[in-house]
Amino acid sequence: MTDTAIATTTAPAELDAAAAAARRAFAVTLASTAAERASWLRAAADALDAARDELVALADEETHLGAPRLTGEVARTTAQLRLFADAVLEGSYLEATIDHPDPAAIPPRPDLRRMLRPLGPVGVFGASNFPFAFSVAGGDTASALAAGCPVIVKGHPAHARLSRRTAEIVAAALVAAGAPEGVFGHVEGHETGIALVQHPEIRAVGFTGSLHGGRALFDLAQQRPDPIPFYGELSAVNPVLITAAALEARADELAAGLAGSFTLGAGQFCTNPGVVFVPAGSGFAEQVGAAVAATSAGPVPMLTDGIAAAFADGIARLAGHADVEVIAGDPAQQPGSGAPVVLRTTTAAVLADPGTLFHECFGPSTLVVEYADVADALAAIRAVGGSLTATVHAQPGEDVAPIVEVLAEVAGRVLFAGWPTGVAVSWAQQHGGPWPSTTTIHTSVGVTAMRRFLRPIAFQDAPDAALPPELRDENVLGIPRRVNGVLVLPGQPEPVA
Amino acid sequence: MTDTAIATTTAPAELDAAAAAARRAFAVTLASTAAERASWLRAAADALDAARDELVALADEETHLGAPRLTGEVARTTAQLRLFADAVLEGSYLEATIDHPDPAAIPPRPDLRRMLRPLGPVGVFGASNFPFAFSVAGGDTASALAAGCPVIVKGHPAHARLSRRTAEIVAAALVAAGAPEGVFGHVEGHETGIALVQHPEIRAVGFTGSLHGGRALFDLAQQRPDPIPFYGELSAVNPVLITAAALEARADELAAGLAGSFTLGAGQFCTNPGVVFVPAGSGFAEQVGAAVAATSAGPVPMLTDGIAAAFADGIARLAGHADVEVIAGDPAQQPGSGAPVVLRTTTAAVLADPGTLFHECFGPSTLVVEYADVADALAAIRAVGGSLTATVHAQPGEDVAPIVEVLAEVAGRVLFAGWPTGVAVSWAQQHGGPWPSTTTIHTSVGVTAMRRFLRPIAFQDAPDAALPPELRDENVLGIPRRVNGVLVLPGQPEPVA
Repeated sequence: MTDTAIATTTAPAELDAAAAAARRAFAVTLASTAAERASWLRAAADALDAARDELVALADEETHLGAPRLTGEVARTTAQLRLFADAVLEGSYLEATIDHPDPAAIPPRPDLRRMLRPLGPVGVFGASNFPFAFSVAGGDTASALAAGCPVIVKGHPAHARLSRRTAEIVAAALVAAGAPEGVFGHVEGHETGIALVQHPEIRAVGFTGSLHGGRALFDLAQQRPDPIPFYGELSAVNPVLITAAALEARADELAAGLAGSFTLGAGQFCTNPGVVFVPAGSGFAEQVGAAVAATSAGPVPMLTDGIAAAFADGIARLAGHADVEVIAGDPAQQPGSGAPVVLRTTTAAVLADPGTLFHECFGPSTLVVEYADVADALAAIRAVGGSLTATVHAQPGEDVAPIVEVLAEVAGRVLFAGWPTGVAVSWAQQHGGPWPSTTTIHTSVGVTAMRRFLRPIAFQDAPDAALPPELRDENVLGIPRRVNGVLVLPGQPEPVA
Repeated sequence: MTDTAIATTTAPAELDAAAAAARRAFAVTLASTAAERASWLRAAADALDAARDELVALADEETHLGAPRLTGEVARTTAQLRLFADAVLEGSYLEATIDHPDPAAIPPRPDLRRMLRPLGPVGVFGASNFPFAFSVAGGDTASALAAGCPVIVKGHPAHARLSRRTAEIVAAALVAAGAPEGVFGHVEGHETGIALVQHPEIRAVGFTGSLHGGRALFDLAQQRPDPIPFYGELSAVNPVLITAAALEARADELAAGLAGSFTLGAGQFCTNPGVVFVPAGSGFAEQVGAAVAATSAGPVPMLTDGIAAAFADGIARLAGHADVEVIAGDPAQQPGSGAPVVLRTTTAAVLADPGTLFHECFGPSTLVVEYADVADALAAIRAVGGSLTATVHAQPGEDVAPIVEVLAEVAGRVLFAGWPTGVAVSWAQQHGGPWPSTTTIHTSVGVTAMRRFLRPIAFQDAPDAALPPELRDENVLGIPRRVNGVLVLPGQPEPVA
């Protein structure tokens, strides 16, 4: 079913060579202009768009996600590369800040100028479930390159051939656009991934994957002699709360929406709505089951045999729980595939055993949790732990403030309509949340993802000519800057010394 | 000599009570307005200024740093609290970002609104060497409170009575200004510090101290079931490079400047210039020795007996090295005190044994390293590892670009004049650098220190009334916001949907 057999392992000497090339490339990317980096990112996007049909066909062979979804994912991936190009040119991300000297201050204040600077070569782990958008040329790679950091991707074995081919295209496009050799590397193999996180030349890591694997790599990154940031997006159950009024007003629409969301892509999304809280006795779980039956064609091949086996195990564990009913679907899953399952329990049951009932079940299942009153549901949502998203479905005019307070506490994105699958790439997007959904206080999607690969640097009493162009007296690059505490837009006069 | 004998250990139940109070307070600080938090910070500053004479006397008894230095440090500390009040009101730190929906996009883009949100209760470790500015009400505390996070300080035993008294004053002032009970707590004891880092209610830690102690606490923070950010400022040797031209033009001034900087406060600064690169055969080390002799009154009491003993050990190790000459001062230090020592070696020696010769020696010593050419010096500076600062002294017209390139690589702040001791508190300040100088890519000084205690949150398709005021359609708070990718200042029209 899966293509892991064709995955290879990069020899340690090859990893060293890629890391050394990335370090050499960093000297160039560090000194590159915003215009240069923007052109590199756009060249990579153009090359991927040009190779779209070839890549989608390869991806479908390896992932079974289907051409329409994969075609859309390529478009999302290239739009993301172009958005980072725009953001690099806009320049706010540099946080350019100038404080003129103040000889009257006690002690006298020197001239201080601060901006962000790229960290160095970055390791990126491709994800199984987004062969384009969270893989070779996905968000981690795009944001690191935008920041000025060379990237070494560790390809995911679930789409080894696609990773290799995408890497060839991206590397060639970057270098053809003028980026230095070594700015982009690609390696393979489990042991290689471990060596990548521990490699002395690697200054940060981006990872999207399981809690188990991510935690192990996070620990390695922290245990280095020189710990490095490990940006992991690990696990989420994405609670949804439906109020009684919403359910009364539009149960059919909600059931259909949930059915569509949790079965999308065989449920293999980190934003899959895994637990849905509804008023007790509403029959909503049965409606969801009926909606699934009306639209689903049965078992769908999953990304890997391992993911399918883990899903089957998770469903068996839930279905075998004394307080859980199977409402729709067969908990006995077929090897390699995932078939939708709807389960039901109560807030009392999840509060008694959150470890079992809130364990992320990566695949097409959802657990409908019936609540007696909203306070019970909120207590149970607090027990879920950190999630990427949390959703409330209410009616206009309902006081949702107490609900939003709890959802904002446990999640990184709070939705008031729709379903959490689907992560728009835009300036205001944020993809991360309290542990275990992510390992840090940063986002892996949206323009601010660049901040992960930058560190501040200040120059004190520097001659103008010794400063980076971003911090010279004259704002030659036309970027937003903060001068003597005042934020000034390009074209507006800045305070003078 | 020191007052560690009067330090106590907080009982575990008291720590739990402080943490529970901080958690309750967080519900209030999270919902507080910028104006409220600014008034709390200013009230704390006013109360410390009012108690200045009492606090300075207490601090001098415990730290021996002298009334002038300590009086200045109080002023710096209260100015810092007021700067954060200004920054909270200005509002840029929230990164408020609004993307209006785009139904024409494929897939349709929802309405997305993003800002930063406080993490929760924060643990802060007071430093030995800054009893005000990096302790109870120092930068970590000020930035956490500004962000909306309650704080529990673990007082440093080197100034236990001062910590306790400062904490009383700060806690009373905060609550009198309307902050919730529990917004500020104070605990004591080594084991209590460990328990603080591991406490389930604590969401981040700020620490200033030794590499050894900081690494141990960093490891504990990462090994939690739910890892939390540990912002440690640990260790730095702060290299200085003097060009031949600069030395020729102003050797006396440079020798006097260095002598003043490395002996300031008995050399107990994290920004102490520990290694100074000068052209070989220049006799600069002897000049520094003479400058010290001309100004120093001999041994000075150090902060603690432990610090004095570690300094004596470090000096003995350096002085005993085959390639190191003692130029001035007696390497046999008196117990409890520190007397200035000037040592000399070569770039060849430090490159052969960087582990010994670049080990931070916390106290009044500096190692003059003679270089044959600048390239040798730069190679040696690369071997120093991460530092808080790096300094170049050159003459106008010299091409310093190759030097700045290396200094910017190893340090968080690059100086072109003056000496690295002294950290101005301003918008553009940055205090941090590559490992081991700090544990993360954030700063502990300057306005952006707040970012450490905030995480992003996004709201999708939220009704206007359900949004925080910062993100509503009308910019009622008058803060800078980015709308549809365009940064807009208060009072300017924002793009409409």
